[in-house]
Amino acid sequence: MSSAASPLPSLAPLHPQTVALHRLEADGALQVQTQQRTLASEVPVALVFNGISHAVMLATPLDLEDFALGFALSEGLIDSAADCFGVDVAPVAASAAGLPEGMDGMEVQIEISSRCFARLKDHRRSMSGRTGCGVCGVESFAALDLSFAPLPARDWVGGIELPQVLRAMEALRGKQLLNAEAGAIHAAGWALADGALQDVVEDVGRHNALDKLLGRLARTGRLGEPGFAVLSSRGSHELVRKCAKLGIGALATISAPTAMGVRLAELTGLRFWGLSRAPGAVLYAPGAGQPPIAR
Amino acid sequence: MSSAASPLPSLAPLHPQTVALHRLEADGALQVQTQQRTLASEVPVALVFNGISHAVMLATPLDLEDFALGFALSEGLIDSAADCFGVDVAPVAASAAGLPEGMDGMEVQIEISSRCFARLKDHRRSMSGRTGCGVCGVESFAALDLSFAPLPARDWVGGIELPQVLRAMEALRGKQLLNAEAGAIHAAGWALADGALQDVVEDVGRHNALDKLLGRLARTGRLGEPGFAVLSSRGSHELVRKCAKLGIGALATISAPTAMGVRLAELTGLRFWGLSRAPGAVLYAPGAGQPPIAR
Repeated sequence: MSSAASPLPSLAPLHPQTVALHRLEADGALQVQTQQRTLASEVPVALVFNGISHAVMLATPLDLEDFALGFALSEGLIDSAADCFGVDVAPVAASAAGLPEGMDGMEVQIEISSRCFARLKDHRRSMSGRTGCGVCGVESFAALDLSFAPLPARDWVGGIELPQVLRAMEALRGKQLLNAEAGAIHAAGWALADGALQDVVEDVGRHNALDKLLGRLARTGRLGEPGFAVLSSRGSHELVRKCAKLGIGALATISAPTAMGVRLAELTGLRFWGLSRAPGAVLYAPGAGQPPIAR
Repeated sequence: MSSAASPLPSLAPLHPQTVALHRLEADGALQVQTQQRTLASEVPVALVFNGISHAVMLATPLDLEDFALGFALSEGLIDSAADCFGVDVAPVAASAAGLPEGMDGMEVQIEISSRCFARLKDHRRSMSGRTGCGVCGVESFAALDLSFAPLPARDWVGGIELPQVLRAMEALRGKQLLNAEAGAIHAAGWALADGALQDVVEDVGRHNALDKLLGRLARTGRLGEPGFAVLSSRGSHELVRKCAKLGIGALATISAPTAMGVRLAELTGLRFWGLSRAPGAVLYAPGAGQPPIAR
């Protein structure tokens, strides 16, 4: 592995760029101003399990240990955090990876139990590599795994109501630090059942952000505790699938969900809020054991 | 193939859903109202080349002929529209695809030239299937293809200035018909060099939307003509790569670009606008043969 001690400039999460801001003034005159802007980095991250490269994701180079653990769990490569023995993150120069100049990458080495690794090898023999959204990289319907284990009914899930959702969403906005500087960056947060926001992670990809959050919760032993995930994105099916797979009981997103996201929430028993913008939010699926949405 | 004559309800681009709208009134009282909302569909679409399933994408089930052609071109599976002999789209019931109830899919059969198909088979032997963003599904840096052919310098590219960008963007907003009903749907448009918007396609995925647009341009013989693509999304690297690969000279996005998107625009010579919101927009890369952005 190359030296983590000399990070490459392109691997910082934010990237300075000289740009030209063009503006039409009120009188119709064109103003052009050269300025420095901050951009979001998007770097290739190779996930390597027990020495075998499994997937390359484009991600924000931050919290990659949590990302690797969350990805391994939410994609079913391992069954619990105990199956992961160690994660090692190192930069890879573009020249070493055969990528264009200025496009350096990161390599994440994940050591998993021999039982999970044997299963992964079997799985890889029967289908191509699964990746971040759980669909890209899949070659046929037969390889598309939308199976799910229904969530158990838990009393606290019904208590995640509008005030709790709005409280968490309001706090999330204030903690999107990278996004405030560069834009184009999603955030995933974990809120307690009363809406108090605990953790926030950011990534250019919404499913990467969620995987980082899930990895953080797994690493710190908080999976299954009362609370809910909040996402700065639309509510697409892979976010629902990943949450349900790890026992998360409720999810709230800022934007609208897709029909497939709602269907999967109904099937898995995930409580699913969307369009979560003060003073309202929309409940799309009530969650396991909760009264159905009346017609 | 099953009958396209009896489409499955879940394969309509928009989907009705009973939801509960929760609102906090000014006095702090909670109002709950059950209502019908329209959701964006997101359905598994299998792309099958000469009978071999190559990739499954989650997409909006509209304009799938254009999507298949654009995907084949922008991912380098074929070299020109003439390599595609035919495209056939048919619904696949969830039960037939082994998917959960209510999650029906679409199968797109693409007939390509034997030369391209032989190359595709060779390629598949050496690496796993490439998919929509050109990165998901890739297993290692070695398989990550960020190669590019620089765009030629063309005089008209420099004429795509702020007024043209804003004209096209303004028109795009008014033509996002699915998004206006359901939200969470991206749009890709094609504008002439004077900013007059011609075509608009929509999809839950931004790279799917762009592939639909590229397929439309290829099918109607307009690739290489003066003009530019407009996207309702952030400017990530795969959009730049797909445009440059098909000879599109300029791209404008509503949101911010990523650093990798800008770097790829510099390398390929794509003129690249972002944060395109009246009365301004930001020029991130000038395009092939244009004066550089002064420091």
